[in-house]
Amino acid sequence: MITAREVRLKSRLVGMPSADNFELITVSVPDPAPGEVQVQNLWMTVDPYMRGRMADRAIYSPSSRPGKEVSARAIGEIAASNSTMYGWRPGFKVGEVLEGGAIGQVAASDDPRFKPGDLVSSWFGWREWFNAPAASLQKLATFGLPPQAFLGVAGMPGLTAWVGLLKIAVPKPGDVVFVSAASGAVGSVACQIAKLKGHTVIGSAGGAAKCAFVKDIGVDHVIDYKVRADLTSALLQAAPMGIDVYFENVGGEHLEAALAAANRFARFAICGMISQYNSTELPSGPRNIMFVMGKSLRLEGFDIANYLDLMPEFQKEMSTWIHESKVTWRETIDHGIENAPTAFLKLFKGENFGKMLVKLR
Amino acid sequence: MITAREVRLKSRLVGMPSADNFELITVSVPDPAPGEVQVQNLWMTVDPYMRGRMADRAIYSPSSRPGKEVSARAIGEIAASNSTMYGWRPGFKVGEVLEGGAIGQVAASDDPRFKPGDLVSSWFGWREWFNAPAASLQKLATFGLPPQAFLGVAGMPGLTAWVGLLKIAVPKPGDVVFVSAASGAVGSVACQIAKLKGHTVIGSAGGAAKCAFVKDIGVDHVIDYKVRADLTSALLQAAPMGIDVYFENVGGEHLEAALAAANRFARFAICGMISQYNSTELPSGPRNIMFVMGKSLRLEGFDIANYLDLMPEFQKEMSTWIHESKVTWRETIDHGIENAPTAFLKLFKGENFGKMLVKLR
Repeated sequence: MITAREVRLKSRLVGMPSADNFELITVSVPDPAPGEVQVQNLWMTVDPYMRGRMADRAIYSPSSRPGKEVSARAIGEIAASNSTMYGWRPGFKVGEVLEGGAIGQVAASDDPRFKPGDLVSSWFGWREWFNAPAASLQKLATFGLPPQAFLGVAGMPGLTAWVGLLKIAVPKPGDVVFVSAASGAVGSVACQIAKLKGHTVIGSAGGAAKCAFVKDIGVDHVIDYKVRADLTSALLQAAPMGIDVYFENVGGEHLEAALAAANRFARFAICGMISQYNSTELPSGPRNIMFVMGKSLRLEGFDIANYLDLMPEFQKEMSTWIHESKVTWRETIDHGIENAPTAFLKLFKGENFGKMLVKLR
Repeated sequence: MITAREVRLKSRLVGMPSADNFELITVSVPDPAPGEVQVQNLWMTVDPYMRGRMADRAIYSPSSRPGKEVSARAIGEIAASNSTMYGWRPGFKVGEVLEGGAIGQVAASDDPRFKPGDLVSSWFGWREWFNAPAASLQKLATFGLPPQAFLGVAGMPGLTAWVGLLKIAVPKPGDVVFVSAASGAVGSVACQIAKLKGHTVIGSAGGAAKCAFVKDIGVDHVIDYKVRADLTSALLQAAPMGIDVYFENVGGEHLEAALAAANRFARFAICGMISQYNSTELPSGPRNIMFVMGKSLRLEGFDIANYLDLMPEFQKEMSTWIHESKVTWRETIDHGIENAPTAFLKLFKGENFGKMLVKLR
């Protein structure tokens, strides 16, 4: 019997999340049952996408205009019977432990495939210890990398960059690639893959330190969106011949700028829109959406959950690139499960630099 | 020497076009020069896309916000050196005759491939007579259809519907298809192709007469957007299980409704956004654009000019469908070149019903 702590959702998120939305609970973890493995987590990840699963309902829906019926209600009714309407994975339940990616070490095992000391990857984040059926764990092949890399550059965020760029946007030789949030866990990998494939790359980031890092990883033109008041002008200056690929992590003005700068047949991999996640009002949409028609653009959203079968291929390629010094990364590490909620909050304030991680041991 | 009339652009369009933007001129058409063919036009087409070529500059570009630089200027500067930035084909020149699709009859020919009486298809619309090099004309194979069908259901608008639905959206068995402007030249064909491929089809149109026609051509659920104040609610009621394909002709609220009702992996063929063409202010964009990410949607714009090589395959298939009574169409016919400008204006007031044509002889 182990005593350990875990983080539960205390209340659903509305607008900018706060530490009050979370609750730290001490629980008892019994010995593993038959077929179970007992794991002590070493690292857990916090990622922007988790915001959606903590929200009460779809953040974005067309709402009423003056003199019109309230359509949000209708959307809600549909959504109740069809959760895919929201476009989110099922919501976390208030009072239950949260989940997310984690790297842990086996402490005890009732399954022959795992033995104490093994490193395992799982979705049982937000807790210090857990028991789980062996089938829900994956033994970690580290390829000589630090284990927490598999929560970032060589894990889901890295796979997201790799899939979004190479499988969704599919750059052609000579394409100019624009990546927003270019210092982030996903964006920085997208930039480096685009560079090693020979592309001219433009990245946006907020603040001098992040921009310096983006420049350091080889990005050709860096836009500090906190300094450049007009992102469209900045992008057009950085890409006078236009952009052919946009890796979208931010939304809002970034999307408008990319639409304005897009060349004909440009492809947008729509990965995230972090600038919009905490809106309580309907945001304004991209006013130049008509360029999708006029310039024969393709905007394609994707959910990395549908591409997890590519993880082995990706990890083999990515670990090679890392060992060849073609890809590097940054981490912001907070310590202790009690600090996981505030680590999560940093994502929405731009206070993380690269991959945001929580070290649990 | 023939005396004939033609329509020239008198001034560039700003906002809703008016008859004053056009000029009717009488010209002399000499005998055909060596290698030329002399044609009397029987029919000419007016289409919404022509609006873009009559405008002064890109209608849509991100503009300044309070406290920000004016980015529209920067976009203009770029666009001057790169016309693809606008996403429009080259603009018509003020004082020059307009162009567009036409069906004519050969009156005289200095080329052995054409003889008097031959029906020809050309881009020399907006004029009663013309001489042109033989290579710029195409002899019309009518497949037993009335010649003006090749300006509509069996011509560019029909090809647009066929390409947008089958090559861009690519419906899968069981997909629910939503088509806006479903009584129009493009929309009505898209609806009928979707029906003959076995799909559940929802169409929107404005007014009882157009909606009755849409119902007549087999569409399962018709939304009268002039009656239904909240298009999103109306669409969700018509498609309680969501839509999988959206054929976009209208933009604005229609696009928001389609984003709200879209199922995961839905595909949007972005063909037109006629509700936005005459805006002089930046329109509001789709406020729920984040669904592109959340529901893994694909929005793809296309320009039929890039698919003209598919015309023969399309015309063979379409003429078969028409002879099998699987596809029908409506026409609004105005008479005389002097009425071509007002026929064009009707497109933006919804005063046409089906394909808008001008009969020149």
